[in-house]
Amino acid sequence: MIEIPLPCLLFLGDVSNPLDAKTAMGLRDWRPEGCVGQYRLPGCAVDLGLPDISFREAVAAGANSVAIGVAPSGGALKVEWVSALAEAIRSGLSVVSGLHRKLSEESELVKAAAASGQQLIDIRVPPASISIATGRRRSGKRLLMVGTDCCVGKKYSALSLHKALKERGIAATFRATGQTGILIAGRGIPMDAVVSDFLSGAAEMLTPDAATDHWDVIEGQGSLFHPAYAAVTLGLLHGSQPDAMVLCHGVGRTVIDEYEDYPVPDLRDCVAQYEQAARVTNRVSSIVGISLNTQGLSDDEAVRACRDNSTLTGLPCVDPMRHALDSILDALL
Amino acid sequence: MIEIPLPCLLFLGDVSNPLDAKTAMGLRDWRPEGCVGQYRLPGCAVDLGLPDISFREAVAAGANSVAIGVAPSGGALKVEWVSALAEAIRSGLSVVSGLHRKLSEESELVKAAAASGQQLIDIRVPPASISIATGRRRSGKRLLMVGTDCCVGKKYSALSLHKALKERGIAATFRATGQTGILIAGRGIPMDAVVSDFLSGAAEMLTPDAATDHWDVIEGQGSLFHPAYAAVTLGLLHGSQPDAMVLCHGVGRTVIDEYEDYPVPDLRDCVAQYEQAARVTNRVSSIVGISLNTQGLSDDEAVRACRDNSTLTGLPCVDPMRHALDSILDALL
Repeated sequence: MIEIPLPCLLFLGDVSNPLDAKTAMGLRDWRPEGCVGQYRLPGCAVDLGLPDISFREAVAAGANSVAIGVAPSGGALKVEWVSALAEAIRSGLSVVSGLHRKLSEESELVKAAAASGQQLIDIRVPPASISIATGRRRSGKRLLMVGTDCCVGKKYSALSLHKALKERGIAATFRATGQTGILIAGRGIPMDAVVSDFLSGAAEMLTPDAATDHWDVIEGQGSLFHPAYAAVTLGLLHGSQPDAMVLCHGVGRTVIDEYEDYPVPDLRDCVAQYEQAARVTNRVSSIVGISLNTQGLSDDEAVRACRDNSTLTGLPCVDPMRHALDSILDALL
Repeated sequence: MIEIPLPCLLFLGDVSNPLDAKTAMGLRDWRPEGCVGQYRLPGCAVDLGLPDISFREAVAAGANSVAIGVAPSGGALKVEWVSALAEAIRSGLSVVSGLHRKLSEESELVKAAAASGQQLIDIRVPPASISIATGRRRSGKRLLMVGTDCCVGKKYSALSLHKALKERGIAATFRATGQTGILIAGRGIPMDAVVSDFLSGAAEMLTPDAATDHWDVIEGQGSLFHPAYAAVTLGLLHGSQPDAMVLCHGVGRTVIDEYEDYPVPDLRDCVAQYEQAARVTNRVSSIVGISLNTQGLSDDEAVRACRDNSTLTGLPCVDPMRHALDSILDALL
């Protein structure tokens, strides 16, 4: 399992589009104590509202790493970025990256890391030692986010539910399955990078035996109804053996994003199909609530949309970015 | 896509258990014109009934490769095997392997191949250039084997159906998705070795656009009801967009092999769940027949078992190793 040495300095390069800084924003929002500041190259137009500090200042402030919090268009690391990251290494920071391009492919970084004893951590690389799933039931409880599509708020829903459980005094751990989640949690497994034979085994490894009343709150991936990614969804679902699931949906989404020929099924069908699939490895698994992403709606419209979906499915429905999660927690516990 | 230079010489090493030679037997049974003979080391107790010939004799007989047709226990290549395979390379043969351990990790073979210009072909390595699935409908027809469990006869069913279609004069291609299938077909993609994000994309790549009346007959993998491998099954199912499926089942199997807590669902449920999953990418997909592995039953018992399953499901049911496939082909066409 990947372990990330936090706290970190958030590296923003010279990006100008805030959408390219989603990873940095996720870390700032959900792991503020893990971020000592931001580092921006000339031309950077994104501001996280964190102090701009140098690599040496970050080390002095206790940082163990610099985390690349942006996805440059094209995916490659610019020459200027590599030079700056090499300087970070020489200053005493490990480098953490969720980019497709591996840090270990940048010879300047490899040399600097070897000379200084710092680590190059590619969080898109799954652990080498994953076993085939055993199907064995594990102790503890598990709550998995599932979705009608990609990018409907599964990560934020999991983080919100994790926070709400802790606030009720319930032992819980957020389990990350994608790059931003892994940065936030400081550990996890990038499910989409696991060789398919080992997917369910990876999910078992991610959510090990725990105390009877402990909840793993697991970030979801993809959707059972997505023509490209449903396999990732199912492997995670079977291996995590969730006792409960929350169905995440984006209001108004009627087709799969970027796959316009593919409809999002009626929410009642989504619930039924997820429960059917989950019951292969956990016969009592059920969906306990709907997390509705109401971005773009007014407050009144958001409340109405949640009420409509709740009436449709018979399940509590809220937007965790706007509403309290109590109705879902009550159904869960 | 892996392409294997046939014909080959079948390398049996020094194995003594015929079960360890399943790959060689599959190749002998389904691609006899691809096998010029067998090569056995001292102590080998398996006999395929093919001529024992030397590497030089194999080259003279037109062989382009030596194929490792056995799985040694433990998975590693013995020193004696490596020496013999290096001699094969020096004699002018490429080496083909479906073992977990890669040929490229054996320095003696790497050196011999570099010196002689022969290839080391690891058929468990998927192609480097797989794209994310597009979900686009492709021309031509596709028939996919699906199973209630692993090892119920999906590969033999696909090969039998492919043969039966050709005998009826229908254009068809067998599409291999596992190591033995790839050796038999001479090409294919090892689905279980594909990174999960690319599984459905790999299945799309394996079954490209074709003539309107051409059938791809696709080897299946795993089972939707298997706690470890269902993700592989679903990725293959979604990417191949089958127009039709044949459900493969082993008579008397009530639990998943080696996962005794996991029941095999009622065949009617299996049919319904496969059709539901398949319809995500092909709305008219349906199961057209049951292929029943009746190994261990008498002829009378086999006929009775097929009749019982046919009555249960309302679908034609035969054992392709014992019975004609006409009833399934009639339902298909």
